Amino acid sequence: MLEVLAAVRAGALSPEAAAGQIGALPFAEVAHQVGASVIDHHRELRTGVPEIVYGAGKTADQIAQTLHELAKDGAAIATRVDAAKAARVRELEPALRYHELARIAQLGDPVAARRPPCASIAVVCAGTSDLAVAEEAALIAEFLGAPVVRVSDVGVAGLHRLLARIDDIRRAHVVIAVAGMEAALPSVLGGLVDRPIIAVPTSVGYGVAIDGLIALGALLTSCAPGISVVNIDNGVGAAVAAVKIARLAWRP
Amino acid sequence: MLEVLAAVRAGALSPEAAAGQIGALPFAEVAHQVGASVIDHHRELRTGVPEIVYGAGKTADQIAQTLHELAKDGAAIATRVDAAKAARVRELEPALRYHELARIAQLGDPVAARRPPCASIAVVCAGTSDLAVAEEAALIAEFLGAPVVRVSDVGVAGLHRLLARIDDIRRAHVVIAVAGMEAALPSVLGGLVDRPIIAVPTSVGYGVAIDGLIALGALLTSCAPGISVVNIDNGVGAAVAAVKIARLAWRP
Amino acid sequence: MLEVLAAVRAGALSPEAAAGQIGALPFAEVAHQVGASVIDHHRELRTGVPEIVYGAGKTADQIAQTLHELAKDGAAIATRVDAAKAARVRELEPALRYHELARIAQLGDPVAARRPPCASIAVVCAGTSDLAVAEEAALIAEFLGAPVVRVSDVGVAGLHRLLARIDDIRRAHVVIAVAGMEAALPSVLGGLVDRPIIAVPTSVGYGVAIDGLIALGALLTSCAPGISVVNIDNGVGAAVAAVKIARLAWRP
Amino acid sequence: MLEVLAAVRAGALSPEAAAGQIGALPFAEVAHQVGASVIDHHRELRTGVPEIVYGAGKTADQIAQTLHELAKDGAAIATRVDAAKAARVRELEPALRYHELARIAQLGDPVAARRPPCASIAVVCAGTSDLAVAEEAALIAEFLGAPVVRVSDVGVAGLHRLLARIDDIRRAHVVIAVAGMEAALPSVLGGLVDRPIIAVPTSVGYGVAIDGLIALGALLTSCAPGISVVNIDNGVGAAVAAVKIARLAWRP
Amino acid sequence: MLEVLAAVRAGALSPEAAAGQIGALPFAEVAHQVGASVIDHHRELRTGVPEIVYGAGKTADQIAQTLHELAKDGAAIATRVDAAKAARVRELEPALRYHELARIAQLGDPVAARRPPCASIAVVCAGTSDLAVAEEAALIAEFLGAPVVRVSDVGVAGLHRLLARIDDIRRAHVVIAVAGMEAALPSVLGGLVDRPIIAVPTSVGYGVAIDGLIALGALLTSCAPGISVVNIDNGVGAAVAAVKIARLAWRP
Amino acid sequence: MLEVLAAVRAGALSPEAAAGQIGALPFAEVAHQVGASVIDHHRELRTGVPEIVYGAGKTADQIAQTLHELAKDGAAIATRVDAAKAARVRELEPALRYHELARIAQLGDPVAARRPPCASIAVVCAGTSDLAVAEEAALIAEFLGAPVVRVSDVGVAGLHRLLARIDDIRRAHVVIAVAGMEAALPSVLGGLVDRPIIAVPTSVGYGVAIDGLIALGALLTSCAPGISVVNIDNGVGAAVAAVKIARLAWRP
Amino acid sequence: MLEVLAAVRAGALSPEAAAGQIGALPFAEVAHQVGASVIDHHRELRTGVPEIVYGAGKTADQIAQTLHELAKDGAAIATRVDAAKAARVRELEPALRYHELARIAQLGDPVAARRPPCASIAVVCAGTSDLAVAEEAALIAEFLGAPVVRVSDVGVAGLHRLLARIDDIRRAHVVIAVAGMEAALPSVLGGLVDRPIIAVPTSVGYGVAIDGLIALGALLTSCAPGISVVNIDNGVGAAVAAVKIARLAWRP
Amino acid sequence: MLEVLAAVRAGALSPEAAAGQIGALPFAEVAHQVGASVIDHHRELRTGVPEIVYGAGKTADQIAQTLHELAKDGAAIATRVDAAKAARVRELEPALRYHELARIAQLGDPVAARRPPCASIAVVCAGTSDLAVAEEAALIAEFLGAPVVRVSDVGVAGLHRLLARIDDIRRAHVVIAVAGMEAALPSVLGGLVDRPIIAVPTSVGYGVAIDGLIALGALLTSCAPGISVVNIDNGVGAAVAAVKIARLAWRP
Repeated sequence: MLEVLAAVRAGALSPEAAAGQIGALPFAEVAHQVGASVIDHHRELRTGVPEIVYGAGKTADQIAQTLHELAKDGAAIATRVDAAKAARVRELEPALRYHELARIAQLGDPVAARRPPCASIAVVCAGTSDLAVAEEAALIAEFLGAPVVRVSDVGVAGLHRLLARIDDIRRAHVVIAVAGMEAALPSVLGGLVDRPIIAVPTSVGYGVAIDGLIALGALLTSCAPGISVVNIDNGVGAAVAAVKIARLAWRP
Repeated sequence: MLEVLAAVRAGALSPEAAAGQIGALPFAEVAHQVGASVIDHHRELRTGVPEIVYGAGKTADQIAQTLHELAKDGAAIATRVDAAKAARVRELEPALRYHELARIAQLGDPVAARRPPCASIAVVCAGTSDLAVAEEAALIAEFLGAPVVRVSDVGVAGLHRLLARIDDIRRAHVVIAVAGMEAALPSVLGGLVDRPIIAVPTSVGYGVAIDGLIALGALLTSCAPGISVVNIDNGVGAAVAAVKIARLAWRP
Repeated sequence: MLEVLAAVRAGALSPEAAAGQIGALPFAEVAHQVGASVIDHHRELRTGVPEIVYGAGKTADQIAQTLHELAKDGAAIATRVDAAKAARVRELEPALRYHELARIAQLGDPVAARRPPCASIAVVCAGTSDLAVAEEAALIAEFLGAPVVRVSDVGVAGLHRLLARIDDIRRAHVVIAVAGMEAALPSVLGGLVDRPIIAVPTSVGYGVAIDGLIALGALLTSCAPGISVVNIDNGVGAAVAAVKIARLAWRP
Repeated sequence: MLEVLAAVRAGALSPEAAAGQIGALPFAEVAHQVGASVIDHHRELRTGVPEIVYGAGKTADQIAQTLHELAKDGAAIATRVDAAKAARVRELEPALRYHELARIAQLGDPVAARRPPCASIAVVCAGTSDLAVAEEAALIAEFLGAPVVRVSDVGVAGLHRLLARIDDIRRAHVVIAVAGMEAALPSVLGGLVDRPIIAVPTSVGYGVAIDGLIALGALLTSCAPGISVVNIDNGVGAAVAAVKIARLAWRP
Repeated sequence: MLEVLAAVRAGALSPEAAAGQIGALPFAEVAHQVGASVIDHHRELRTGVPEIVYGAGKTADQIAQTLHELAKDGAAIATRVDAAKAARVRELEPALRYHELARIAQLGDPVAARRPPCASIAVVCAGTSDLAVAEEAALIAEFLGAPVVRVSDVGVAGLHRLLARIDDIRRAHVVIAVAGMEAALPSVLGGLVDRPIIAVPTSVGYGVAIDGLIALGALLTSCAPGISVVNIDNGVGAAVAAVKIARLAWRP
Repeated sequence: MLEVLAAVRAGALSPEAAAGQIGALPFAEVAHQVGASVIDHHRELRTGVPEIVYGAGKTADQIAQTLHELAKDGAAIATRVDAAKAARVRELEPALRYHELARIAQLGDPVAARRPPCASIAVVCAGTSDLAVAEEAALIAEFLGAPVVRVSDVGVAGLHRLLARIDDIRRAHVVIAVAGMEAALPSVLGGLVDRPIIAVPTSVGYGVAIDGLIALGALLTSCAPGISVVNIDNGVGAAVAAVKIARLAWRP
Repeated sequence: MLEVLAAVRAGALSPEAAAGQIGALPFAEVAHQVGASVIDHHRELRTGVPEIVYGAGKTADQIAQTLHELAKDGAAIATRVDAAKAARVRELEPALRYHELARIAQLGDPVAARRPPCASIAVVCAGTSDLAVAEEAALIAEFLGAPVVRVSDVGVAGLHRLLARIDDIRRAHVVIAVAGMEAALPSVLGGLVDRPIIAVPTSVGYGVAIDGLIALGALLTSCAPGISVVNIDNGVGAAVAAVKIARLAWRP
Repeated sequence: MLEVLAAVRAGALSPEAAAGQIGALPFAEVAHQVGASVIDHHRELRTGVPEIVYGAGKTADQIAQTLHELAKDGAAIATRVDAAKAARVRELEPALRYHELARIAQLGDPVAARRPPCASIAVVCAGTSDLAVAEEAALIAEFLGAPVVRVSDVGVAGLHRLLARIDDIRRAHVVIAVAGMEAALPSVLGGLVDRPIIAVPTSVGYGVAIDGLIALGALLTSCAPGISVVNIDNGVGAAVAAVKIARLAWRP
């Protein structure tokens, strides 16, 4: 924009023309078309978080092209990529790394992307069935530069398992708590630790669990104040929220 | 029925055979009309539990007449009676006793009704807002002859409160756990005690609590196996279920 | 814990260090990691019921390892295992027994596990479509040591079928009633028998049955007081709840 | 229409003009405006059932005027009129008769309306709380000319009450079954009688009853084929459906 | 029952009295076990309608055996049988006939079953996507002995199609109206014909149609009184309800 | 903005300072605080429609102040104002006009506001209970400058009423169709007229009508393509949508 | 109809017979049976829009026949046809053209169908996952004769992308806005442009998105007045609604 | 606990007795009964946040007593207290301060409570109807020691209002975004600022807004990653979550 304004001062551009350019400019310059989607290289500047590709509704081709374009900034990541699709993406991008449990495909080296420094995050998980979502959260958090502590299978029906790990959890600065079914874990955690807690309901369960809606509702009505919640199975959202907090918490 | 009994007296029918016939036989003759409803004096013989009047949709007149008729068997009880209606019932039945918190009206003396012997029941309650439902359960259980231990305000966000009372709970033979909002208490209890647990979701909460539906769903999806559940705010149902169990558990 | 306290008395441990160890200890000693999941051998001591493996979200490998570890206590069982997955588990654990209707895989001999003595349980089933859930409940109850009576295909639209078996049901001490669609069976049973009734809604039905939600709702609003309910298709939960009751009811 | 066509034959009307008139005519002539609503005196000719005024969203004035206009055909009836509104309507129409339980206001003499002959209808009701809806159905059926048998308080948790009245029900030609909560009555009836059954769910109940939605769902998923259902609390709809059937069943 | 009939032969019991006794009498003796299900040969005597096999949750073996047993009464029918399963049933019962659109399998000759006489039924269908459900209703009605008129593709967005067939519909004694999406057809029909109307919502539609729930709700809230409704896609239920009515309407 | 840019050219403002001002400027200048809300006088310039005050959650004071401020542009209107609140607003703004049926309060003269020219709109209403919503739509449309034709009480169960008015509807350029319960009217209209149709579901109805959700669902699944829908009872939204269309349709 | 009336005038037809013929005639003559469905060649005359075949529930045969019949009017189109089915249709109709992303099959040349003239439509799309629905809307609009501007991937989380294209959107006369997940795009658009906006929610999303129901609800509750909405994923409905408006907006 | 352990070392307590005391002790000592509820003075030590009284289900007496007890730690606060109840509480506690819009009652001086230092929080609010919830969040945050910036009435339908305040929002360290209806504000904010955003859906709206459920769903499905959400109208929960974060962000 400064270039445009300098041109105005220099008389090379009329105020009227400048007004038009200024309205369109800061947005147009970042638009870079890859097939039908628009790559937003400036997103990280604006929001602190690069674009993370949601792979569920995309073809292997679309994923490969988008990762390729985004990885020019250092590294790029796609979620909800099943093993078969990942194999097809790797044919196009041989450098692709794939994490099967978390269904995550990654291109490039996150270290090269030089993220802001970040305090540590604990990813706590109620049951083994919730591990896929927990691992998605942990990998995205690490991709964004956070040190992560994983604490698994500490559901409240076996309270001793949770208490045995409570100090590990307390040492982290932010807690991501992943829980399906009745999702009681974050309520208990909320009474035991004073850290910000981001809760992720999972679609684990059957019958009246209704694909995670009961877990979601239980988390939102938790009697432990200060828990905030993201969408069902949304490990990515929890990781981004936690990293934004952990960056604020970082001390050199 | 008189004919059957006469046949027994005449020696034409063994008492054993007569007992069988009377069990199966005439339903019509026990029907005794009070206004529009039918009083079933034989219900206690068949199911072990006398009729408990659901006062919500009835007028003070209907409640008074029905309690009067049922109390001929010793004692009678009506639930969901608000204070104003209870006052009008007492004008008709001056011997009425009323418990405001539990919204219960009672006529006659349960002791006189000579219930079967019964082991003890713990009524455990997550928050003070759940007390009305818990007290309904406790009073109905006592009306049916059970010794009751009350444990209140032991929600899981303050786990130490619950652990401080856990031995009181373990000493009972059956546990009624009353919880609203995310209803995590019974899941935690289920991992700590080996007694049968009847859980009662309450309509306490707001927003996504949806009048207790989330609490209900959370209880039904609890990761602690062996918890069974009754309708939202249904202290009566929980008490009847618990008493049926506690009678089986009774030892002289 | 006594070892720690003895060390304190002996002066080998400072009170401060002991405080830290006691917080972590009673829980840590029972935790035993198998892959990502934590096997809880002490669960049966605490809750009276051993861990039952929920096979739905697990691989054949995970099921085989977990059953192997748990069967060290005598016997182990996994539910929601389909025939194909069971075949793969059996390749890893040749001693595996598999019940196809109930989708249950079992390792070891429950008798060897020496369960507490237990009174009898009737598993009553409304229609042939509900048989899979009823059989899951029956097998789990037997695994936990209960004698089981099976009564099938006695839905209320053919009341005579139910009445023909009512005496068999009355002889049991606890009743598990399995019903889909409008789930009227437990309401009728509740007026005919005085035993505790655990009702299991099933996902049988179509259209407005909504995968069992209507059956669940109908059971929870039953006009027969004292029925308690578990999650849709949750034969395991009903069996555990019933066994806890039946153990209380047992007389030598 | 014959007038129009005769005019065409007589040459007084061109075919083109007649085509326009015929399109508009058969409908315009029956429209008779009362305030904002249109009275349809021809409805009974077309559908066999006169207009029944739904009083819930109308003022006393609107109800009075509409009943006055409709009663010109012999008699008229309005539903969902509470006692206070009925009193205000009677000030305008002193001949009004009012049934408080059913919340029905009636003007004129149904006998004078000379309905078609009609076989008998049984109105069967599960609990006393369902009586208001049952009585609405019974009164509307009588208003339309049907002989009605009332059978009340025969819920399935006291099966003997129902069996004691089953012959009365079998003697009718059509059955209206009114039931709230889990609404099991019609399923049991469907296995005991061979008459057409119209089921009416009621909003009686609390918690997961959800204002009658569970009762509705239970009726629609009934295992007894041949039961058809109307909206929650819709005594009017059930009565109209039953009368249409009973007229077909009538034998001199 | 043989005793009762012997008493009749001996002249000790009038046939009329015997008929009454047989109707009420023993239920247990009609139970005839086929695999896990109970065949109820007396159902048609009690309810006027033979058992119709719901094929969705059954194996080809179970369907074949049950049809074989039921066809001893003349003819038997199974619904919700897809083409592949029907082929497997036919291997076991070569006389099987199969209707692919309606997914119905039939054994034996309904004419041989000598149903009661029956007035005619119109099966009216809003769109071509609703045809499968409509045909299920039509075939079941014919199986039960009813003459059927089929009227297809007369949705209200093309009102002229419906009006072109209205006289065919009016000539029938009962109307089954099948409609998906917004299900407006029965409301319009209800204002045009004076016959009883049984409406069947279908699961046709997408998005907010929610598998037929909106169609169901629209039918239940229809402004045309006297329409009664069965479960989504429940052609069988509509046919049974309609036949019960049409039998009452039959005139020699 | 031109002023700012001119200042840059004149050297009175540095490019950097101008960049900051331009970001903030076009928005700040229209903000005009009235109590806690921000009056947006430029909204009509941007969107063609002035701000319409939603009165439901506001006090009489807030409504009066906001109307006063907005009426400086000629005229202002508030919806969802009940009679009691309207009376209190009139004490503060004596020139207020109030329409009780539509619950609309108006200040100033819409004619003075000089709206763009507009083609005519038909507001069609299924039942008398829907009149309040229909009138809200009609008054807002008139406030925005549209000529309105009102057609009332033309529900599809009396098809002749609708056909009698169909030419009046066809003469308008846009149709607003207001319907509650099963909301079949717009589907029928969609097959009879070729105009754009905006449908408004209403909360009229009971039981499974669920406060208008079924009407909404029925409208969205209408088999007549080209109907678009607004929120339940949202007469305002329908009027604004219709006026935007009617302005496009206007011919001098 | 004129022929019939002429025959009356000529005396060749009695008025009575003519009345009967006129009732049946205007509808019967357009019915043209193709298999089970009725082709309505007059629909375009009545509603301005030809029949568009909904391919989801139809076989390749049915689609081929129906397209063949409809294409006699110039061109015909079928939606929701997947690639495999399209291949089978093309075997029967080799001239078929197929658009894979939009799942649309087309026969004949829309230009030959001579549609009414039409102003331009902007199809705006929030994310790449919404493209299939947006393209369905765009192709149908073009099929109906509208010039279409496509604006893709302008979700509100990257506001600059939307602002960069806002002038393209403003130049169109009607806007179709396609958005899934939280569907915020139309609310923002509603504050930026003064054109009629038809919003299409999509089923894109997971967890609490509930197959598009949240997007639908968000659109219906939009704070930007004047947005109207069609069913989830209903590109066809949006296109038809938009074209009806754009035709009104057309200026030579 | 150190006292107990010291007693063990001193030999005054056996290890066995100490084990029992340690299990019960740390919890029992903080329990301090006020009427039926348990005051937890140690909660702030454990979780960093003092108990905040939820006033909705409590009497004025209970609120007064609980505030009195809690205020011994410096200050205490109760939410969801309406004006009438607040007046009754003030009779018991004359020092009570009351904020009517936010429905908050406060006793004592938060400054005296010496909270931990805290970075600043922006409370951003979409519409004036959301102000009550926003003010609840702001007041609780201030009570917990946070500096708060309030930004009101910046809904996305008037994007310029939001952009005019964006720098104020960016200067805060954490953002609480309060929005009802379609709740699009946080999605837009998420693309404009890089701070952690806690979103609060409100119950503002009507019809399909369903008491805030759509707003909640829209927030959870937001396309802007990193937004976390609390229960509908839960200003308290958002404030507690934000303060926990802001404390981490604080720099001296």
